[in-house]
Amino acid sequence: MGLDAMLLTSAGSLKAYADYWFNFEMGPSPFHALPAALFMVPYYERVLLMADDQQQLSSADEQNFTIDLYASYSYEQPPQFIDDFCRKLKLILGSFKGARKIGIEKRFLPAFALEYLVAAFPRHEWIDAGEAINLLRAVKDADEIEHIRKAALVADMGQLAVLRHATAGVSEIHLFNQVRQDMEVLAGCRVPIMADLVSGERTANAGGSPTDKLISKNDMILSDFTPCVRGYWGDSCNTVHIGIPDKAQLKTFALVKEALQIGLESLKPGIAANEVDARMRKHLSGAGNFGHHGGHGVGTAYHEHPRIVPYNTEPLKAGMVVALEPAVYRDDYGIRLEHLAVVRNNGPELLTKFTHQFTADA
Amino acid sequence: MGLDAMLLTSAGSLKAYADYWFNFEMGPSPFHALPAALFMVPYYERVLLMADDQQQLSSADEQNFTIDLYASYSYEQPPQFIDDFCRKLKLILGSFKGARKIGIEKRFLPAFALEYLVAAFPRHEWIDAGEAINLLRAVKDADEIEHIRKAALVADMGQLAVLRHATAGVSEIHLFNQVRQDMEVLAGCRVPIMADLVSGERTANAGGSPTDKLISKNDMILSDFTPCVRGYWGDSCNTVHIGIPDKAQLKTFALVKEALQIGLESLKPGIAANEVDARMRKHLSGAGNFGHHGGHGVGTAYHEHPRIVPYNTEPLKAGMVVALEPAVYRDDYGIRLEHLAVVRNNGPELLTKFTHQFTADA
Repeated sequence: MGLDAMLLTSAGSLKAYADYWFNFEMGPSPFHALPAALFMVPYYERVLLMADDQQQLSSADEQNFTIDLYASYSYEQPPQFIDDFCRKLKLILGSFKGARKIGIEKRFLPAFALEYLVAAFPRHEWIDAGEAINLLRAVKDADEIEHIRKAALVADMGQLAVLRHATAGVSEIHLFNQVRQDMEVLAGCRVPIMADLVSGERTANAGGSPTDKLISKNDMILSDFTPCVRGYWGDSCNTVHIGIPDKAQLKTFALVKEALQIGLESLKPGIAANEVDARMRKHLSGAGNFGHHGGHGVGTAYHEHPRIVPYNTEPLKAGMVVALEPAVYRDDYGIRLEHLAVVRNNGPELLTKFTHQFTADA
Repeated sequence: MGLDAMLLTSAGSLKAYADYWFNFEMGPSPFHALPAALFMVPYYERVLLMADDQQQLSSADEQNFTIDLYASYSYEQPPQFIDDFCRKLKLILGSFKGARKIGIEKRFLPAFALEYLVAAFPRHEWIDAGEAINLLRAVKDADEIEHIRKAALVADMGQLAVLRHATAGVSEIHLFNQVRQDMEVLAGCRVPIMADLVSGERTANAGGSPTDKLISKNDMILSDFTPCVRGYWGDSCNTVHIGIPDKAQLKTFALVKEALQIGLESLKPGIAANEVDARMRKHLSGAGNFGHHGGHGVGTAYHEHPRIVPYNTEPLKAGMVVALEPAVYRDDYGIRLEHLAVVRNNGPELLTKFTHQFTADA
């Protein structure tokens, strides 16, 4: 794209390139233009502009970054965070006069900011670099893999906690809270968690949020936990039977577990993403519906490149972190099993370590 | 502003005007341009454009709204959600040719969408109506107050749960999970919660997220719970002493409680927002630091108009929902107490009902 500089504003990019993370669990702050923005001129300068209530939230150090703050919250005077953010951004971009072709993330930059920049720098070009950055982020370095490993450990804890706490008579939302408690106590902090936790018939629909439905004897529980530990995500899924599964259910569980194993064994540099998908899908054909991706990349976003899907011919590379989640959905129940792994030259390295087991005592 | 139509995209506006709510706890979906957008032509038409995985999430009915969907998630073909969202938006706006002056929320509309609209409708005007809408939303109707009442009940449960579960030797994050379990089980669903939960010295800094710090005998715990129940927020704060408070602490707690009572009693139509703030602040003067707002409106955003702050001369109106949160921060601890109330002609109606008590057995 021949860009002179980048202005990055997505949560995923800010974490990946400035180790900055804003916990999005509470929604956007009413006193932020954006939590932060990162301006990068390759081989030259990185400026991290943050809301002034955010300065503890990045490990971006002053040796490698120029840190700048804009005024966010105020109570004695009306807040001016939009104006101050724009003013600071103008100063930052204005000090790099040679940088005119700027890559931005148009999905994660608010309209007011682009409108302001276009007016302030009428001769600049503003190129959407969102997809290019997403592709760049697919291969992780060792540091990033360590971050994801921690999130995977929290996901493991979630799956162990389901086996420990799941019992007939407890509601899905109650179980979810027992499970999340174990995950957050392990992490030592709040952890945003994307979670499917469904029981009984709802497992046939692949997922959903926990509700006040009571878990019954002979329900299955499908639990997909995707925790975000300080900006990096983990991912995991298991399906547990509360009672004694029948033979057909046991057979389906075993089949999905085999499909996951087939998928994991196929993870190696050079294989096309859709070949991994196809091998799992072939093993499950005829057993039920499997109407979603076979897997996806995981990093500072919970679903990123490489997508393990029928259309994606992209070859996998060493250092990619991939979640595989084969599934069989039938009329009355669904079973999905998932592991998270790094693509390595000598075979996949599992990041989630829990064992997929179908009953608490199996 | 003489607008012909509005295109609303903030979470707060979508809930207030279309009863649509997307749970933001997991961050934005990788398959959404936006969860939804609402196009309104006054007295004529309301079109709610949603991602096609969102159709269960609004109670907007087909009698009062035209419901439209754009394609979001896909796995057999590459997803086209940006293109499809823009295409649908163009069709919707194109069918109202007379509407050329469009109010938008420039903080909550992504750059790609405004860029597309400007190109597709070069003669339209795109006016930032964000602040005007925020001001409009300050007075709540009876339905909205019922929604906030439910969220306030969940906040009450949180404060009761602190008194029940807080004990020396438990970590802040563990306590938070015990408390949130009671809140979510009551709500019967996941509830995004903005929470300060700090103990000991950190209470002096007004707030923060729960960590793995263990709560000690003679710590205070400052717990500010702001739960979002299906799109409407509640708010509450209490400060609890784990042990036996000394006389100065008891005196400070009583002083803050009096300030809250003074603030609540002053809530009536016509009083200036900053007069409410000043009365609380005056009562606390000399007792310590109180370096934040005295209160704020609550609705589909957790901090909205009217701000109860020194600069805001805006008169309160019946139907405004206001949280008051006087506080005293000293070198070694801080005490903040908060209630949520509706401004009524005949005096404030409390929405949070818990009693502010300083010790579990008081």
